[in-house]
Amino acid sequence: MDNFDFYSPTEFVFGRDTESRCGECVARYGGSRVLIVYGGGSAVRSGLLARVGASLDAAGIVHTALGGVRPNPTDDKVREGIALCRAHGIDMLLAVGGGSVIDTAKAIAAGVPYDGDFWDFFEHKVTVSEALPVGTVLTIPAAGSEGSGNSVITNAALQKKISLRTPRALRPRFSILNPCLTFTLPAAQTAAGATDMMAHIMERYFTNTPDTAVTDALSEALLRTIAEATPQAIARPDGYAARATLMWSGTLAHNGLCGTGCEEDWASHFIEHELSAIYDVTHGAGLAVVFPAWLTWMARHHAAKTAQWARNVWGVAEGSDDTATTLAGVDRFKQWLRSVGMPVTLAELGIDRPDIALLNSRLHEHMGPTVGHYVPLTAADTEEIYRLAL
Amino acid sequence: MDNFDFYSPTEFVFGRDTESRCGECVARYGGSRVLIVYGGGSAVRSGLLARVGASLDAAGIVHTALGGVRPNPTDDKVREGIALCRAHGIDMLLAVGGGSVIDTAKAIAAGVPYDGDFWDFFEHKVTVSEALPVGTVLTIPAAGSEGSGNSVITNAALQKKISLRTPRALRPRFSILNPCLTFTLPAAQTAAGATDMMAHIMERYFTNTPDTAVTDALSEALLRTIAEATPQAIARPDGYAARATLMWSGTLAHNGLCGTGCEEDWASHFIEHELSAIYDVTHGAGLAVVFPAWLTWMARHHAAKTAQWARNVWGVAEGSDDTATTLAGVDRFKQWLRSVGMPVTLAELGIDRPDIALLNSRLHEHMGPTVGHYVPLTAADTEEIYRLAL
Repeated sequence: MDNFDFYSPTEFVFGRDTESRCGECVARYGGSRVLIVYGGGSAVRSGLLARVGASLDAAGIVHTALGGVRPNPTDDKVREGIALCRAHGIDMLLAVGGGSVIDTAKAIAAGVPYDGDFWDFFEHKVTVSEALPVGTVLTIPAAGSEGSGNSVITNAALQKKISLRTPRALRPRFSILNPCLTFTLPAAQTAAGATDMMAHIMERYFTNTPDTAVTDALSEALLRTIAEATPQAIARPDGYAARATLMWSGTLAHNGLCGTGCEEDWASHFIEHELSAIYDVTHGAGLAVVFPAWLTWMARHHAAKTAQWARNVWGVAEGSDDTATTLAGVDRFKQWLRSVGMPVTLAELGIDRPDIALLNSRLHEHMGPTVGHYVPLTAADTEEIYRLAL
Repeated sequence: MDNFDFYSPTEFVFGRDTESRCGECVARYGGSRVLIVYGGGSAVRSGLLARVGASLDAAGIVHTALGGVRPNPTDDKVREGIALCRAHGIDMLLAVGGGSVIDTAKAIAAGVPYDGDFWDFFEHKVTVSEALPVGTVLTIPAAGSEGSGNSVITNAALQKKISLRTPRALRPRFSILNPCLTFTLPAAQTAAGATDMMAHIMERYFTNTPDTAVTDALSEALLRTIAEATPQAIARPDGYAARATLMWSGTLAHNGLCGTGCEEDWASHFIEHELSAIYDVTHGAGLAVVFPAWLTWMARHHAAKTAQWARNVWGVAEGSDDTATTLAGVDRFKQWLRSVGMPVTLAELGIDRPDIALLNSRLHEHMGPTVGHYVPLTAADTEEIYRLAL
């Protein structure tokens, strides 16, 4: 096990009706003038924004709102939010939505006290040393942003989707997790979210670091739990138990717990980010296509940990050959993905004639000569992986 | 799954040589004048206290020390620490040791800014609203106090061992976890620590709350991991991997993760506390005797979750009868306990003629008419459990 720092200070307030505790939570973490950031009209139509507003009102907290954040959120909305915060003397962000909304709120929070352009943080020219505090009310379990210090924003003009990671500054102070808010999620979004969670765990799990018994056991347990709960949530969208399982799993998948003591990989995420940036696909659906391709490539090049995954997550019987064991696991993973309605090829994802040369050159332009750590992938390797996804 | 708040803001700094980061951590959390609390001479002889002091010196932090904390720590040392803090204008506590040392430091931290007697907190007359910040350098993985807001202190005059639980005030700001510091732990202490960790998980796991899939899966994974690592650590005391596994497991066993969404039990801990208070036994060894007795009683009265435990932790084959499945699990658990050198009866614990009437009357005097939640145990029930431990 490698040395590590694990710091997950976010207060998670989990359960039915917990959005009624927004005011209490904002006040506890020092907010008095709040910008509520949200996405489409569903938060309005469902009455959620009104309930959040009522809770803030009851606590005497002034608030204004910024809607219209879209999936694969872009820099323009961040700039709009920064200007709004400055104009209204905002001292806390409250994101009401999924990962896109939360990531936008975090980028705004970093940008407000910064004199330059917030995109400097995403280009890694400057470190976020100061930011407004952020709270969240999660409505889509997937990205794990409610428990992480990360934010992923796409610069529309540059066609660049970049992940900013901060150990402290952008971790939400609190996150309100009410599984009932996810009852209305369509099957496709539920499955894409679950795939994203699994990917967050697997990006950490596929490591060469030896002796990571605790982290492995927790990761395998969460992967099995997500695999079981997802079809249940799809079959019965308003079943509390499966929705609660997915919501809590999604947070634990990405708050750092599953990576303690491991060198992490993250190649599949970066390979997918180019798909999202160019073809605007759903991140989780993109991962459903990329991860099996990445695993298939690994089966033939470095199959030790992937074989452990096949055995302990997918119940593949012990075999003498790690390659065959891994491939059997990939088969079961793909079967599972198909069973919950996910695509497993680029064609199924709706990209009939992907520009692999463009995807791959963008990838290495952003990431350098190699991507990932389990096997550092060269441009030739990642081109093969894009082709395996055809 | 029940509604829950999960808040574990402690920064865990894990790995080799991490005690050299004491100064950095104390400074980050605002300490400038530190009281180091420690136990016996081993922290001095091993050079650990000197290394901690050097790290504080390098960061320009003033420090003084209070040694002599003993297992099952008592109120007198807390009072001594409070006086010392006030005399020296201390603004942070740094506990260097195991659970007894950390619990003492927490009680001191609560007592310093309080006008009355600190024991008021333990008698639940007053809530801890304010406390000095606490950091820890852990040397014994067992109690989990490095990641919890709890403190257990024995009032020697009253022969009362009481657990104080705070959601926020007494959670350490940081905990430094260097597995190498545990290489010198004797086998008996290693095994008692592992038993304590397992008990912390099981006290949360044995619940009637339905639909706790995530929490169950994580708890079962940690229990299996501890069961595997403990004999490895005993066989090779300076093997880093097993020591690291136990250290991180002990923290996760008790920082709240394994209880998310569950009504918790804790009967076995309270039953054991009376043993410790009267016979001064090692807490973990006491639990090794009490928990199998509690489980044996449950096998005949409420065996649903205990049968799940037998199957998923100890690999007992699926049977038609939860009682038989549970008893088979208890057999394996006792075998495991014996294999790592733990006692499983009061006689093996060195208590040949326990005063069960006294233990049981003290227990219900402290806890009221019933103890625990999985089955609320009456005085008649707990008397049976004490007898099952003979």
